[in-house]
Amino acid sequence: MTKNTPIGEVGDLPPEEFRRIAHEAVDWIADYLTNVESLPVKAKVRPGEVRARFPASAPEEGESLDGALATWRDVIVPGITHWNHPAFFGYFPSSGSAPGILGEMLAAALNVNAMVWRSSPAATEVEELATDWLRQMLGLPADFEGVINDTASNSTLYALATARQVAYPDVRQTGLFGQPRGRIYASDQAHSSVEKAVLTLGLGRGSFRPIESDDAFRMRPEALRAALEEDVAAGVRPIAVVATLGTTSTASMDPVAEIARIAREFEIWLHVDSAYAGSGAIVPELRPRFSGWEGADSIVMNPHKWFFTPSDCSVLFCRHPEQLAGAFSLVPEYLRSAEQGSTRSLMNYGVALGRRFRALKLWLVMRTFGSAGLARRLLDYVHMADELAGWVDEAPGWERVAPASFSTVVFRYAPAGMGLDETNALNQRILDRVNASGEAFLTHTVLRGKMTLRMAIGNVKTTREHVVHAWELLRDAAEALSKAA
Amino acid sequence: MTKNTPIGEVGDLPPEEFRRIAHEAVDWIADYLTNVESLPVKAKVRPGEVRARFPASAPEEGESLDGALATWRDVIVPGITHWNHPAFFGYFPSSGSAPGILGEMLAAALNVNAMVWRSSPAATEVEELATDWLRQMLGLPADFEGVINDTASNSTLYALATARQVAYPDVRQTGLFGQPRGRIYASDQAHSSVEKAVLTLGLGRGSFRPIESDDAFRMRPEALRAALEEDVAAGVRPIAVVATLGTTSTASMDPVAEIARIAREFEIWLHVDSAYAGSGAIVPELRPRFSGWEGADSIVMNPHKWFFTPSDCSVLFCRHPEQLAGAFSLVPEYLRSAEQGSTRSLMNYGVALGRRFRALKLWLVMRTFGSAGLARRLLDYVHMADELAGWVDEAPGWERVAPASFSTVVFRYAPAGMGLDETNALNQRILDRVNASGEAFLTHTVLRGKMTLRMAIGNVKTTREHVVHAWELLRDAAEALSKAA
Repeated sequence: MTKNTPIGEVGDLPPEEFRRIAHEAVDWIADYLTNVESLPVKAKVRPGEVRARFPASAPEEGESLDGALATWRDVIVPGITHWNHPAFFGYFPSSGSAPGILGEMLAAALNVNAMVWRSSPAATEVEELATDWLRQMLGLPADFEGVINDTASNSTLYALATARQVAYPDVRQTGLFGQPRGRIYASDQAHSSVEKAVLTLGLGRGSFRPIESDDAFRMRPEALRAALEEDVAAGVRPIAVVATLGTTSTASMDPVAEIARIAREFEIWLHVDSAYAGSGAIVPELRPRFSGWEGADSIVMNPHKWFFTPSDCSVLFCRHPEQLAGAFSLVPEYLRSAEQGSTRSLMNYGVALGRRFRALKLWLVMRTFGSAGLARRLLDYVHMADELAGWVDEAPGWERVAPASFSTVVFRYAPAGMGLDETNALNQRILDRVNASGEAFLTHTVLRGKMTLRMAIGNVKTTREHVVHAWELLRDAAEALSKAA
Repeated sequence: MTKNTPIGEVGDLPPEEFRRIAHEAVDWIADYLTNVESLPVKAKVRPGEVRARFPASAPEEGESLDGALATWRDVIVPGITHWNHPAFFGYFPSSGSAPGILGEMLAAALNVNAMVWRSSPAATEVEELATDWLRQMLGLPADFEGVINDTASNSTLYALATARQVAYPDVRQTGLFGQPRGRIYASDQAHSSVEKAVLTLGLGRGSFRPIESDDAFRMRPEALRAALEEDVAAGVRPIAVVATLGTTSTASMDPVAEIARIAREFEIWLHVDSAYAGSGAIVPELRPRFSGWEGADSIVMNPHKWFFTPSDCSVLFCRHPEQLAGAFSLVPEYLRSAEQGSTRSLMNYGVALGRRFRALKLWLVMRTFGSAGLARRLLDYVHMADELAGWVDEAPGWERVAPASFSTVVFRYAPAGMGLDETNALNQRILDRVNASGEAFLTHTVLRGKMTLRMAIGNVKTTREHVVHAWELLRDAAEALSKAA
């Protein structure tokens, strides 16, 4: 303390104050995990309603954490759409779990930075360990080296930046100015993050070429080959192809073995986006579906999706980590240290310099569930999805819009004789009605003009009964809305 | 459960099991926060030592969380460099705090995604609220709109992607192919993230032009103007200038008002990197140093640096949020929803689609400390740094290498008559000796060839006594090593 400031002002809240309030928070969390099913899945608030209940400005003098916890309970939580609810079937369930929450608590307490080894050795080494455990569980060869990023969007950006570096060896120095146009290929079902990466990298949307998918929403390899041949003949430089194993709309699987052969033939980078479905590769019964992905140059798989690890945790596996570092590495003087020859500096594998200790939660999840335990859980969801697909097939007026894949089922209510626009509008109303019930939450997609309902099963607490109930809600909504019409 | 799988397999650990172990974890955290000062600041482990104590593969069947907590205590924590230690003076202290840890605990429990409003309304609205509270505290005009990213590296990438979009209006469609070379300017003291962004954006290092800094490591505006004039005359297209308020090496402040005038004159984007020192703008006594930054197009400030918020939390303020979204926004069908006209979709302001509920910890920190409480704490550190600077000035053989700025002091031991190489080597040994003591942790930089020691004061628990003791350690090390030589 300097003489100008009152003694006792410097410093955090007393640890005993933290202890008291954090125990209270733990009890809240445990109660929440017990009772989350009794809450509406989708928040029942209107835009602006949450924010309006806060003061417009920060308080000048600090206020108590007890009051903050009250605001949390009374204002914030009612404005939350509960991804923890076992009937949350929207997007891809980014399911946390108890060991994952514990990992985030401990990581937040340490608050270290895994940018270079020295800045916290265990954070770097547990990241190396956890990504290697995961690699083994996925059955990938030992030359795939993993690094944890925040999101698949960034993992894919980093992979494609590396592909760009390989395709244009002097891009690091000269940029894309004056270079021949390049192109990145992915199916018309690929995630928007591929196109976003193309934009970010300065390639422009004109450098993204969507490849036609087949009836089951899988990239058509012959269309990829034709596009490559056409582009090469036109003087366009192919940079990379992205194969999606588990697309966002339908969880369809591109034929990766054949795509890998084409990528090798044209000598371009193959990136595999398996952010959601990649978890499935740990299941012996599902592993064969991934055959050929080991031929990729890079693979992204998100433990924060179908692997019970809280957000954010996206693992980018790369067989050429030195090329990945080559695209990004810049080591300023203030980050140099003696161990840099013998240790990995994880900051070199992407844009972000600061890196949380994300490996901790991933390690805790794998250790607590075990590889076989995780595999059994994932297979359960696949069985539930298959059963749901069977119900859809048998129910009059209902139809599947794509094959069920992993734990995702896409379907719609399409009574005979109803036109497309009317059917689409009806499905939107069914979706809104089910979501408004608060008893289940689904999202939608549009497949070749058809408004389509999606159920992605993956919350750690979801059981068959939740799927049964959601299916009842859907059928009831369809019936009620059809009568009303 | 399907009939193929055993009942009871689906599901998380029982919440009561979580409750028990999480209470234990809270006690560990509270004890840790109480006793962290008794631990060595820098981890005393050799490369590979931590990892070697783990099994090479994940267990097949899950193991207990109690065992995991034991591994945490016995294996992981001894491998940690403690950013929580009050004598951690390295890099920029990314200091957490008790309210921040609480925020991370609760956010991890909810595990929601703030990508669109619907995916968790309160997460979007609290982010709007918290960044607006922060904007007011910093004294920025209301047209600056904030969004939370993981790191300043990404905030700067997003800002410069927007500048690129403004400079090349058709880049989104056509990319940089065939465009005239562009250029981004920053001082030779700017953070490496600026150059990393230039690489990522496909501009190439040739598009980065470092501008000479003056004796106090501030960008020379006349050098910026000369560079711009030269480039424009040569047909190079200026894209953006980055002014750093609080450089990484010395916390020096570029003359932002003058730089803003030049940016306006040349009609280029002005991005301000104030990741560390920006927090200082909340202090009335320090606010005048930021005069002119309100003329920027975008400003990055990291609450996870000098603002007691655990990593990761970087706020990008932008006066043209529609241009920011214009550089990135891509809304695929599966993310559309009815409210998108009337609510903000925070995913549109950068690369990452998945977004944690980071606003919670930031809100908790501002609410618990209060704006005046935060300002008093920051000013304390500035007073400590000024006092340390005075001691350096008075001590024989010691010298400052740059003016003290905010809470950062850079200095070295340079006995009269010693050559540069020898002086540099001596300072490296002083640094290594102090860090090996485990009683304080500093990092270094190199300034115009001089190996320089840095002390950045900012941990929430640091008091004057810790600074006094670090200074004693430094002087003792210098004396011992000088005698030995």
